[in-house]
Amino acid sequence: MTVRALLFNAQGELVQQGQEELLAHYHDSDHFLWLDICGAESQRELNALAKFELNPLAHRDAQRHRHPPKYEAFDDHVFLLMHELTKLGDQENFSRHQLAIFSNNSHIITRHDLASEAVDKYWQQITTDKKLPRGGMGQLCYQLLRGIVDRYLPLMFEVEQRLSEIEDEIFNASTDDLLGELINYGSQLKKARRSFVYQKEVIEEIMNSHEHQLLAFDEHELIDLFEHFERLASLANLYQELTNDLINGFISISAHRANHIMKLLTIVTAIFLPLTLVAGIYGMNFQHMPELSWHYSYFFVLGFMVSFTIFGIAFVKRKGWL
Amino acid sequence: MTVRALLFNAQGELVQQGQEELLAHYHDSDHFLWLDICGAESQRELNALAKFELNPLAHRDAQRHRHPPKYEAFDDHVFLLMHELTKLGDQENFSRHQLAIFSNNSHIITRHDLASEAVDKYWQQITTDKKLPRGGMGQLCYQLLRGIVDRYLPLMFEVEQRLSEIEDEIFNASTDDLLGELINYGSQLKKARRSFVYQKEVIEEIMNSHEHQLLAFDEHELIDLFEHFERLASLANLYQELTNDLINGFISISAHRANHIMKLLTIVTAIFLPLTLVAGIYGMNFQHMPELSWHYSYFFVLGFMVSFTIFGIAFVKRKGWL
Amino acid sequence: MTVRALLFNAQGELVQQGQEELLAHYHDSDHFLWLDICGAESQRELNALAKFELNPLAHRDAQRHRHPPKYEAFDDHVFLLMHELTKLGDQENFSRHQLAIFSNNSHIITRHDLASEAVDKYWQQITTDKKLPRGGMGQLCYQLLRGIVDRYLPLMFEVEQRLSEIEDEIFNASTDDLLGELINYGSQLKKARRSFVYQKEVIEEIMNSHEHQLLAFDEHELIDLFEHFERLASLANLYQELTNDLINGFISISAHRANHIMKLLTIVTAIFLPLTLVAGIYGMNFQHMPELSWHYSYFFVLGFMVSFTIFGIAFVKRKGWL
Amino acid sequence: MTVRALLFNAQGELVQQGQEELLAHYHDSDHFLWLDICGAESQRELNALAKFELNPLAHRDAQRHRHPPKYEAFDDHVFLLMHELTKLGDQENFSRHQLAIFSNNSHIITRHDLASEAVDKYWQQITTDKKLPRGGMGQLCYQLLRGIVDRYLPLMFEVEQRLSEIEDEIFNASTDDLLGELINYGSQLKKARRSFVYQKEVIEEIMNSHEHQLLAFDEHELIDLFEHFERLASLANLYQELTNDLINGFISISAHRANHIMKLLTIVTAIFLPLTLVAGIYGMNFQHMPELSWHYSYFFVLGFMVSFTIFGIAFVKRKGWL
Amino acid sequence: MTVRALLFNAQGELVQQGQEELLAHYHDSDHFLWLDICGAESQRELNALAKFELNPLAHRDAQRHRHPPKYEAFDDHVFLLMHELTKLGDQENFSRHQLAIFSNNSHIITRHDLASEAVDKYWQQITTDKKLPRGGMGQLCYQLLRGIVDRYLPLMFEVEQRLSEIEDEIFNASTDDLLGELINYGSQLKKARRSFVYQKEVIEEIMNSHEHQLLAFDEHELIDLFEHFERLASLANLYQELTNDLINGFISISAHRANHIMKLLTIVTAIFLPLTLVAGIYGMNFQHMPELSWHYSYFFVLGFMVSFTIFGIAFVKRKGWL
Ligand SMILES: [Mg+2]
Ligand SMILES: [Mg+2]
Ligand SMILES: [Mg+2]
Ligand SMILES: [Mg+2]
Ligand SMILES: [Mg+2]
Ligand SMILES: [Mg+2]
Ligand SMILES: [Mg+2]
Ligand SMILES: [Mg+2]
Ligand SMILES: [Mg+2]
Ligand SMILES: [Mg+2]
Ligand SMILES: [Mg+2]
Ligand SMILES: [Mg+2]
Ligand SMILES: [Mg+2]
Ligand SMILES: [Mg+2]
Ligand SMILES: [Mg+2]
Ligand SMILES: [Mg+2]
Ligand SMILES: [Mg+2]
Ligand SMILES: [Mg+2]
Ligand SMILES: [Mg+2]
Ligand SMILES: [Mg+2]
Ligand SMILES: [Mg+2]
Ligand SMILES: [Mg+2]
Ligand SMILES: [Mg+2]
Ligand SMILES: [Mg+2]
Ligand SMILES: [Mg+2]
Ligand SMILES: [Mg+2]
Ligand SMILES: [Mg+2]
Ligand SMILES: [Mg+2]
Ligand SMILES: [Mg+2]
Ligand SMILES: [Mg+2]
Ligand SMILES: [Mg+2]
Repeated sequence: MTVRALLFNAQGELVQQGQEELLAHYHDSDHFLWLDICGAESQRELNALAKFELNPLAHRDAQRHRHPPKYEAFDDHVFLLMHELTKLGDQENFSRHQLAIFSNNSHIITRHDLASEAVDKYWQQITTDKKLPRGGMGQLCYQLLRGIVDRYLPLMFEVEQRLSEIEDEIFNASTDDLLGELINYGSQLKKARRSFVYQKEVIEEIMNSHEHQLLAFDEHELIDLFEHFERLASLANLYQELTNDLINGFISISAHRANHIMKLLTIVTAIFLPLTLVAGIYGMNFQHMPELSWHYSYFFVLGFMVSFTIFGIAFVKRKGWL
Repeated sequence: MTVRALLFNAQGELVQQGQEELLAHYHDSDHFLWLDICGAESQRELNALAKFELNPLAHRDAQRHRHPPKYEAFDDHVFLLMHELTKLGDQENFSRHQLAIFSNNSHIITRHDLASEAVDKYWQQITTDKKLPRGGMGQLCYQLLRGIVDRYLPLMFEVEQRLSEIEDEIFNASTDDLLGELINYGSQLKKARRSFVYQKEVIEEIMNSHEHQLLAFDEHELIDLFEHFERLASLANLYQELTNDLINGFISISAHRANHIMKLLTIVTAIFLPLTLVAGIYGMNFQHMPELSWHYSYFFVLGFMVSFTIFGIAFVKRKGWL
Repeated sequence: MTVRALLFNAQGELVQQGQEELLAHYHDSDHFLWLDICGAESQRELNALAKFELNPLAHRDAQRHRHPPKYEAFDDHVFLLMHELTKLGDQENFSRHQLAIFSNNSHIITRHDLASEAVDKYWQQITTDKKLPRGGMGQLCYQLLRGIVDRYLPLMFEVEQRLSEIEDEIFNASTDDLLGELINYGSQLKKARRSFVYQKEVIEEIMNSHEHQLLAFDEHELIDLFEHFERLASLANLYQELTNDLINGFISISAHRANHIMKLLTIVTAIFLPLTLVAGIYGMNFQHMPELSWHYSYFFVLGFMVSFTIFGIAFVKRKGWL
Repeated sequence: MTVRALLFNAQGELVQQGQEELLAHYHDSDHFLWLDICGAESQRELNALAKFELNPLAHRDAQRHRHPPKYEAFDDHVFLLMHELTKLGDQENFSRHQLAIFSNNSHIITRHDLASEAVDKYWQQITTDKKLPRGGMGQLCYQLLRGIVDRYLPLMFEVEQRLSEIEDEIFNASTDDLLGELINYGSQLKKARRSFVYQKEVIEEIMNSHEHQLLAFDEHELIDLFEHFERLASLANLYQELTNDLINGFISISAHRANHIMKLLTIVTAIFLPLTLVAGIYGMNFQHMPELSWHYSYFFVLGFMVSFTIFGIAFVKRKGWL
Repeated sequence: MTVRALLFNAQGELVQQGQEELLAHYHDSDHFLWLDICGAESQRELNALAKFELNPLAHRDAQRHRHPPKYEAFDDHVFLLMHELTKLGDQENFSRHQLAIFSNNSHIITRHDLASEAVDKYWQQITTDKKLPRGGMGQLCYQLLRGIVDRYLPLMFEVEQRLSEIEDEIFNASTDDLLGELINYGSQLKKARRSFVYQKEVIEEIMNSHEHQLLAFDEHELIDLFEHFERLASLANLYQELTNDLINGFISISAHRANHIMKLLTIVTAIFLPLTLVAGIYGMNFQHMPELSWHYSYFFVLGFMVSFTIFGIAFVKRKGWL
């Protein structure tokens, strides 16, 4: 449970690092502030945020374990809720957590239950640069969002790579685990696509509602962000379709192979069962069975069996079964 | 069959609890009124509602056993028809009932065939607070709608939880009941999604038609409601797609396993049927069968049988069948 | 082949019932007229309609055996083409026929090949009331459209009822006819959905083009009509999806059960075929088979067979095949 | 390879029939002209069209063997590219060819590789009427488009008729050819739907761009055309969905029947294989087999076999397998 | 790694061919310039592009191995990113590479990792014509885009040709490779469709943003480009649907054939297994088996076997199984 804060002077230079004690200083002077709350206990969080008059409904959304990404503009700040890949999110499991951002041109509050790679990355960068990025809070917010989106793309290309491998594999060693992997990708990609679409719409809402200057973004940076989320949503959709196709392809290959196996089974049965009957017939103990006494009947029966087998296989070959 | 009423003075304080007798008092003074009708007989209902001049078509929709959620603005009141989860609605069976609301800034009429958790909850709260919520009839209406939506969300997460369990289960003990459960989810989720989409559109219509002040809502509360129903519709759609995928995955697993079983069957048959024939051949009672008299032919045949089996299994292994 | 007419005075009171002879009277006085043509021969129909200067293309559409529902406004009248459920239309077979309406505020012409329940119902009502409905031709047109839509809804709920029954049935007595019923529902619902969507769009066009007063409708009545057709289209779509799901579910159940049966077949074969070989081996007539003479070899072989079977069943249980 | 032309005077009366020689006359006087080019060699075509200053890109599209239907307005004429059913196009094979139209209020050029039924039909009509249709070039263009659309509709109803037959047939004599027919319909209908959608959009573009008077159409005729192509696209889509459903239904029927057959196979095997083992056991030649010498053991074994069979069939009936 | 440049005078005549050394000359005079960078090392590329003040984000997109096609207008130039078919792209493998274009009315920069057929084609043409195309940079840009689109179309028709062949083939020699080919087409076409849709949207954006004269295009050429990409996207979509249908059709054919094979297997088993039992019964060595001694029992058993077989086959024929 960590609450940390960075205080910047009017020129955006970092003047003090600390915790809640910096809040008072921020509130009564034209300073800039970044307040970062990670997995805070509710009471401590409430005290820290008291002065910011956050909308209760928005704050409750931020505290929820799961809530779709959203953008809502309030009188003096905007509220952004995004889904960030957790540290242990990987190709098999796109586990995401909620990263809430309450911000305007003078302060930014980041709130998240688990450690956030994006927050740590830019917190690190600012404490080394000792100053806010040139574009102020708007650009810091853009950087945090880029921090979120940039970690998804490599993951998606890994999925694409794996899917092309599976596409070649499903013909040879098609095992249960391969199917399990595809089914897991199917549901992971659907959930991820939904999250990407929500986050693309969040950027779209920012681009459309940009004019009232609550939080100044650079237009080309917003376009870049939008393109990234649009691309993620479109890739997730493409890969999810490819996954469905592979499962569908899987069914058609199994059906095709099942036929092939059944043909073999039918051929073996149709050839050897009758011959077993013939052997069984001459294994019967009737006292009066004329053929048993003829000298060559044994060789005749063997000859019949061999020619029956050859004829059977030839017939099947001609019908294209083998 | 219960008809109950709450009468509030101009300041919104609760002055009297009762039944139809409060109606007269309401009609000729600047009081506020909440009239709740649960499973009323038609005549008693008509008498109670006579003075409110409800549109006959709208009232008939409210009385229908089933009607899609809708919003319709009339001259002096708005008509809201929503689908509420019944008391015994659960994860297996999203049973819903119709909750009709006729309201304007001075009165609210709630009508429903079965007991309504949302109505009971806020009826309870008002009789304890002894006053209307600060935002008057508009906020009461918002609270009733929140009462409806809040009971669906936990149910949806239960479905998601169950679907991930099934996703892992379908590989081992895939039984008929699992399929039955999936097919039931498929149809429940489709029906629920349709109801959520209708209710999301109802909130959207309220947001778009807000300006003519029939019933004053708080803008952020409406956004919150809209987001909830949008989220429910989107989750129902996501889970219904996951259900389809699981059923599809099920088919592919069965197809894959069917192949595996048939291969075993074919291998057993292709090895033992010919050997049974060989045994059958030497079980024949022809008088003249040279091999029968040779001393080692029995061991020769046994040897042949063993090597035939080993060769068969090796061949199958190499072809990747086992 | 029937042509009938109703003549009303300026106050909308019914003054005369008859056939084509009333047309002349209508044309040269401020009377109202309802002309109903059912399955007319072309020439008699042309003569009756001559004075009304109907657009030739519209009239040809009306005479077609099949044409999608449509709305087209001409200079002095509107043309409405709807699909009405025929008398023998039922849950198995949504047979529809074309009901064409040419109307403006002073006259209404209804044309249809088969008997129309909606026309008969309101023709009956007017001849008893002895006057046009209060809202004149616009309301008569609304009533005819309600007459069409009201007969579809109960049919749709019957389909829903049947689909939930099938949903429970497909697990036990899944027979061919059940599948046949589902496939029939699939195509019926698709065709019905297309017809409902067309008719919903017709009402929408009327609502959007309402302003030029050709035919006065009551706004709330139009909304009610639109909701009904929208609901029918949405129900048809929902049930058609449910039908697809059931067919898909059917495939997955069959696939699942096929596996179960094949496992049994494979188990029986894998246990008894080898044992039959063993019996066959000791049924061979080689002169020199040592085991045959040992006293206990018969009981040894029986013991082997019993333990082989028990071991086989245990092995299969452990692998979860049974 | 034919180039033919019709020259009309200012009143639209046919004054001369011929070939390229009429072009000069047309160009320097207020005559009307219809120039029809069928499968022309490129050079002869270029010479004929030289004076018309056609846009090179548009002309190249017209000459392509295949190009999607399109509408493009140039300064002094419009360019229309449509797909007409060829003479030998039928229900099995919707073979289409390109019919290009370059037209304005004074001349119309029709260009096509194969013989065009629509062009021949109205060329025939005009040479008999000896004059242009009353609505001039706009109406001639409308008639050509009606000539195209009217030949598709009967074909579509044939497809619908065939699909309902198949819907009933797939339960009994479901053969390979039935499947082949469905798969052919699937791809034909998809390609046709795409062509109909393009042509619907062409009419829509004409309706939207109508105002700049390049080519005067009658508004109601355009609506009629649009409705026809919209109907064709919607029917093609409906039938293609029905085709998919039938293929899907086919899979479910086969799966259902496969189960039925395998149950029979398993029952036969599970009953007769054990009995064959019993017979095999008592066919063994061990010297010491006590049962062999008991007087009634043969009848005991026969009795066991009969009761085993009866018990087996009863057990299977109870489990609903038969 | 090649950097090459073409310098043109104010009249668009080619004055000098060379490399980076021409850049200085271009920058301080009203010359036109085409700078082509193929697989440049980053530093050499940066130096060459320094003076052009390209937006860093756009340049980074251009350098990415993979980025969706996009259009972005900056103050003094537009940035176009397209997907060009690589030299070895063919029907089996639509391998594409990124072709980036930074251009305005005075210069055009083309940047690509692999050799670009479009760039080489028009570089070749200009160095032979010794001058820019009449429409200047705008038309050169159009030509490059036509160079990209024209190579896709023949490839798509090859796919269509192959799909119709497969449609006929899947009934006879349906092998694994056929399925593999279909699954490969499925994923190739999906990825290609996504790329075509992006590129269609790029042209659409140019058409909509055309007015601010950064780069002058001819309107009809843009329409032609748009139609081509729209057609490619629509063909890719059509063929991908046909591929799905063929895979689906494949499943239904396999299912249908599986039934046929299993019927044969069941018939053979149901006829010969019981007869083998009969033979086995009379092969038993019970001392007391009355039938064994009757003179004609052997022929009786043979007669029974023959009639049992004939009856079996007749029964199956009547039930339509064969
Ligand atoms: Mg969520
Ligand atoms: Mg999972
Ligand atoms: Mg999500
Ligand atoms: Mg970018
Ligand atoms: Mg990008
Ligand atoms: Mg697909
Ligand atoms: Mg409903
Ligand atoms: Mg159910
Ligand atoms: Mg519902
Ligand atoms: Mg909320
Ligand atoms: Mg939400
Ligand atoms: Mg929420
Ligand atoms: Mg899916
Ligand atoms: Mg129709
Ligand atoms: Mg039918
Ligand atoms: Mg219809
Ligand atoms: Mg209603
Ligand atoms: Mg309704
Ligand atoms: Mg579905
Ligand atoms: Mg085409
Ligand atoms: Mg074909
Ligand atoms: Mg086409
Ligand atoms: Mg028409
Ligand atoms: Mg029509
Ligand atoms: Mg379908
Ligand atoms: Mg990409
Ligand atoms: Mg591939
Ligand atoms: Mg791509
Ligand atoms: Mg073109
Ligand atoms: Mg084109
Ligand atoms: Mg399809």
